[in-house]
Amino acid sequence: MTRFVLVAGTTETATIEGISAAGADPDLMAHTPSADAEILTYGEPVRSPVVPVSPTGCPSPAVITRAAREALDFEVTVVDGGLSQPTGAPTVTVGASAGDDIREQDPVPTAPGAFAAARQFGQALPDDEIVLAETVPGGTTTALGVLRALGERGVVSSSLPENPIERKQAVVEEGLAASSMEPGDAAGDPTRAVREMGDSVLAVSAGLALGAIESDTAVTLAGGTQMLTVAALLRHADVGRSLALTTTSFVAADPSADVAALAADLAVDVTATDPGFDGSNHPAMAAYAAGEAKEGVGMGGALALADRAGLDMADIRDRIETVYARLVDDELGEETGMRS
Amino acid sequence: MTRFVLVAGTTETATIEGISAAGADPDLMAHTPSADAEILTYGEPVRSPVVPVSPTGCPSPAVITRAAREALDFEVTVVDGGLSQPTGAPTVTVGASAGDDIREQDPVPTAPGAFAAARQFGQALPDDEIVLAETVPGGTTTALGVLRALGERGVVSSSLPENPIERKQAVVEEGLAASSMEPGDAAGDPTRAVREMGDSVLAVSAGLALGAIESDTAVTLAGGTQMLTVAALLRHADVGRSLALTTTSFVAADPSADVAALAADLAVDVTATDPGFDGSNHPAMAAYAAGEAKEGVGMGGALALADRAGLDMADIRDRIETVYARLVDDELGEETGMRS
Repeated sequence: MTRFVLVAGTTETATIEGISAAGADPDLMAHTPSADAEILTYGEPVRSPVVPVSPTGCPSPAVITRAAREALDFEVTVVDGGLSQPTGAPTVTVGASAGDDIREQDPVPTAPGAFAAARQFGQALPDDEIVLAETVPGGTTTALGVLRALGERGVVSSSLPENPIERKQAVVEEGLAASSMEPGDAAGDPTRAVREMGDSVLAVSAGLALGAIESDTAVTLAGGTQMLTVAALLRHADVGRSLALTTTSFVAADPSADVAALAADLAVDVTATDPGFDGSNHPAMAAYAAGEAKEGVGMGGALALADRAGLDMADIRDRIETVYARLVDDELGEETGMRS
Repeated sequence: MTRFVLVAGTTETATIEGISAAGADPDLMAHTPSADAEILTYGEPVRSPVVPVSPTGCPSPAVITRAAREALDFEVTVVDGGLSQPTGAPTVTVGASAGDDIREQDPVPTAPGAFAAARQFGQALPDDEIVLAETVPGGTTTALGVLRALGERGVVSSSLPENPIERKQAVVEEGLAASSMEPGDAAGDPTRAVREMGDSVLAVSAGLALGAIESDTAVTLAGGTQMLTVAALLRHADVGRSLALTTTSFVAADPSADVAALAADLAVDVTATDPGFDGSNHPAMAAYAAGEAKEGVGMGGALALADRAGLDMADIRDRIETVYARLVDDELGEETGMRS
């Protein structure tokens, strides 16, 4: 059986201006992973006060992952990777806390404990295969921090059409200085890299993947450069076996992030799925075609599962419209106004 | 869509000697609801150190509910109704804490808050129908306490072949005295009844059912006299509409608990499903036929769903053997020894 595991959490790093588009505004951003978990679980927010959208109104990739789930009916397990806001989605606890800003000292003190607990959980999962996904606003910046701490190629994607890569690099430089680290200082020490430069979602994802691999569960990393960073953490934890990443065509085509080069460095096989949003005038799809969001909540992995099951992407697009309409109706009902 | 919602929690009342068979010994009993949630979610324990069995080795009804789920693939949501031990199952949090012994003063102080949060969650659930189940060792004693506090007929079933009803009555009398209450003093005040004489699972179940009913989600109470107590709480919260309970033939036939009379008092329609365990020599079925366990983890509700879907009970029995064999293998692998 295939289980889709979503690790959901937050980092204060996301509140740095200009870093993330995973929320309509910085105050709402902390609700995004909690709401994403609800959309994936129930098809709509249940406890979260918002439908997660970007500042321009592009809906969260949770909409696309949920649409694929409504077609495929795969089982979902959400793991709390440091949520800072309540969620109505059921979550597995592994002792992760919301991460602090990586420019602070010791921003993720719970990383080693959460990594260890997630590893045990991953070992115990009885599934044949897990597809591992993330939702954490600001996560590409912490991913960049971890890649640099490990001494890997520092290239990450973005939920913004224009990747604020220089801003991210400056944050990471400040973070390395705050931790008194040089690039590569945490090579071979994945929990140190995450604790000092990452976020709890990376710690939990890497621990869970490691445990699953150790117990011969097939693991597919579903995401963009954040999940490639999980692959890097696994390599630095001495995982030698082949690793697979499923992502979207939007991430694969992102010129600001050399996914192919980073994947090659880490010996990760990449599958990119194109959901065929080009030419769409639907708000949930046109924004992606224009370079917004790109990936997250395992969108590329969910599309790959749909593709593997022989589903037509036109069917998935129809279901995206259904999920989106439900969210818009909900928001209008509550008069909180999702822009569409 | 139908969602199966399991409210899982603990009460210190269970540790009173001779009250409950929901664990191989009193120390292990606190793990039972955590393990039940894992068996329902994953098909086997994941984080819990034990396979939940009675002192004689009768496996938890989670085995039967899981078997039905493997046939039907219904969606499961576990709500934390005051778990005292870790679970690897994803859980929804509504602020419930493990209940104290009802012979203490104010044993469930979180009951009103958990009731309110569960009610909001129930209102927000987008499902057409929920099947609501419980797992809480000692839960028939707290149910008796609540029935008496409400002034309802005090008849409850038992997970033991010989219902220790006099023991339970004595505990409830002590509890009423500790709360300075007379029978019926909490009539019309369901949260007071639960707070002073119940457990968090009852508070959460009643709140969740109330919220679901308020938002026109069909609710089936899946269980025995504990879920009838939830019906009583709903009646005392002024719910007038018809209520349905699905239970097992073992509860319906329990001479120590007049389910039919209590259900009639509360205007609850009862459906009892017989899984056909009579004459079986399988350890997971023969014990039930001999009067052990009887119900729990929504066993009767899961059997009713199977029945409604046109499944043959012989198919369910085959699947019970499969689930049971997996648990026995797991236990033997860990050398902790489930008696079979």
